[in-house]
Amino acid sequence: MTNRLPAALDRARALTVPAMEAALGRLHPDLRRIAAYHLGWTDPDGRPVAAGGGKWLRSGLALLSAEAAGAGPDDGLPAAVAVELVHNFSLLHDDVMDGDTERRHRPTAWTVFGAGPAILAGDALLALAQALLLECPAPHGQRAALHLGAATGRLIEGQAADLSFERRGGVSLDECLAMAGDKTGALLACAASLGAVLAGAPAATVDALAGYGLRLGLAFQAVDDLLGVWGRPEVTGKPAGNDLRQRKKTVPVVLALAAGGPGAAQLAELLAGGDDEERVALAVKLIEDSGAREATAAEADRHTELALASLDQARIPAGIREELAAIARFVTEREL
Amino acid sequence: MTNRLPAALDRARALTVPAMEAALGRLHPDLRRIAAYHLGWTDPDGRPVAAGGGKWLRSGLALLSAEAAGAGPDDGLPAAVAVELVHNFSLLHDDVMDGDTERRHRPTAWTVFGAGPAILAGDALLALAQALLLECPAPHGQRAALHLGAATGRLIEGQAADLSFERRGGVSLDECLAMAGDKTGALLACAASLGAVLAGAPAATVDALAGYGLRLGLAFQAVDDLLGVWGRPEVTGKPAGNDLRQRKKTVPVVLALAAGGPGAAQLAELLAGGDDEERVALAVKLIEDSGAREATAAEADRHTELALASLDQARIPAGIREELAAIARFVTEREL
Repeated sequence: MTNRLPAALDRARALTVPAMEAALGRLHPDLRRIAAYHLGWTDPDGRPVAAGGGKWLRSGLALLSAEAAGAGPDDGLPAAVAVELVHNFSLLHDDVMDGDTERRHRPTAWTVFGAGPAILAGDALLALAQALLLECPAPHGQRAALHLGAATGRLIEGQAADLSFERRGGVSLDECLAMAGDKTGALLACAASLGAVLAGAPAATVDALAGYGLRLGLAFQAVDDLLGVWGRPEVTGKPAGNDLRQRKKTVPVVLALAAGGPGAAQLAELLAGGDDEERVALAVKLIEDSGAREATAAEADRHTELALASLDQARIPAGIREELAAIARFVTEREL
Repeated sequence: MTNRLPAALDRARALTVPAMEAALGRLHPDLRRIAAYHLGWTDPDGRPVAAGGGKWLRSGLALLSAEAAGAGPDDGLPAAVAVELVHNFSLLHDDVMDGDTERRHRPTAWTVFGAGPAILAGDALLALAQALLLECPAPHGQRAALHLGAATGRLIEGQAADLSFERRGGVSLDECLAMAGDKTGALLACAASLGAVLAGAPAATVDALAGYGLRLGLAFQAVDDLLGVWGRPEVTGKPAGNDLRQRKKTVPVVLALAAGGPGAAQLAELLAGGDDEERVALAVKLIEDSGAREATAAEADRHTELALASLDQARIPAGIREELAAIARFVTEREL
């Protein structure tokens, strides 16, 4: 990335990492080792490595949301750890499901430890996330766990839709955005409001923060979709054209298919066929020629604007609002 | 099975199935189809089939535990559905992890729908289980979710230990029982007390019921271990000698290895080697010769006695106690 990590995410990492290490200490050593490797903390043998990947985006949002509700960042810490755990549960399982072999420039956990242990480690992170919130005092703990559970349900729903879209054509932009809203938006909406829920904030504050997070998620997904086609492997840590080979119905693909004409027909045919380099390169060109690349970037900008507008729906302290805006800029200005 | 299903489990099925169908209605259609197939309700295309597998043991215990606390069985229904969902989450994932191709006399879900969708369906059941409890009124809903979360954590911990034991020798009986207590006992302990938790029962009642469930789980696991070596495939629905081929450190295996002498040494060598039929047959014979078969059956009886004794630690109505005793007999008298 060319742009610097927003200060709020730097602070989030400093607070969240020790709390997360303590939480992972509750797991079976084999599962803890897988989680620590996946998080970029250790090598496959459990030896510490120079701190790597992870943007601590979700924990940063959770901590800011506690502050937005007038609480201290520490009050949002169980929320911060819980959302990172759910995020990493889903990454561990997604990598197995998608057969992805690289993440954050390293072999994925399942390729190192086996699919079974990686699945189990994901399960453990999900169960742990819920436990951390349920250990918070009633009634806010229950309310927070309910929020996180609903977001987890939508995340799973979105992943199911994503898998089903791989097997069919004719996916509309609305379906694609609904899927992205579930798969990426729901957990970011939860992250951006969960600290406030735990702090007992009024519904208007929670809703405004969640609205920001949902739109941020849609912007994030659009940028991710651009990276999935045009991102350079040395920056993204994933093979180029990966999404096309997996026939994912991402925003640029759906927009290009919806553009109609002979280009769209040819693209549909290409995506239904094999996944050799030549076909992938031609598909990329057809998507570019359709104008879908620019249209996807415009989608990202539109959702970013809506994210910031959502914050105006409640009284968010100006300093927090500025930090949330900086995060939105950071997320959408990732280098291709 | 030769012995009839206890009446409490028949009643549990009648109450739980419709509630579970309603809960599954909240899932993505693709995931609902996988869950319904896995539960034996439908064929791979989603067409209803004659009601099959599933003992509704955990839901039966949950409903009885609500009654033990003086509530109606309906009050225990969210607990009954939640424990069945967690149980089936773990079966879906275990089958992927263990590479098992048959369950309840049918191809396992992952062989029909693919590993990815089966993993995701398991995730969905786990998230749904927590949601059902969290939707119950505070503070009992939070307490119940916390109980179920802790049991889920132990179940995952036990599965991790089980996987790690496959890769090493020298597993002691204590380690083996601790693993079984986590893997099988924890969720049964939770099931046998979760309805009481939801009904706001005092700690002494909850603890007595959980103690019964934990011991029932250890008895259950010992019988399962016997079935895993000597069970007839047409009864168990699993290939004969399956556990030995997977090098599982089950109670009879650990007891036979602990017996020492040349037989134990030969068995250790066999288990470390290949998994052809001849080796498996010889391993079975060595285990029998060591007396481990009878010793495992004695373990099952011992735990059953302790399960019933645990019920005396609190005031459980005599009728409920009799139903719990019938379930304990049913569980331990499964036909080999």
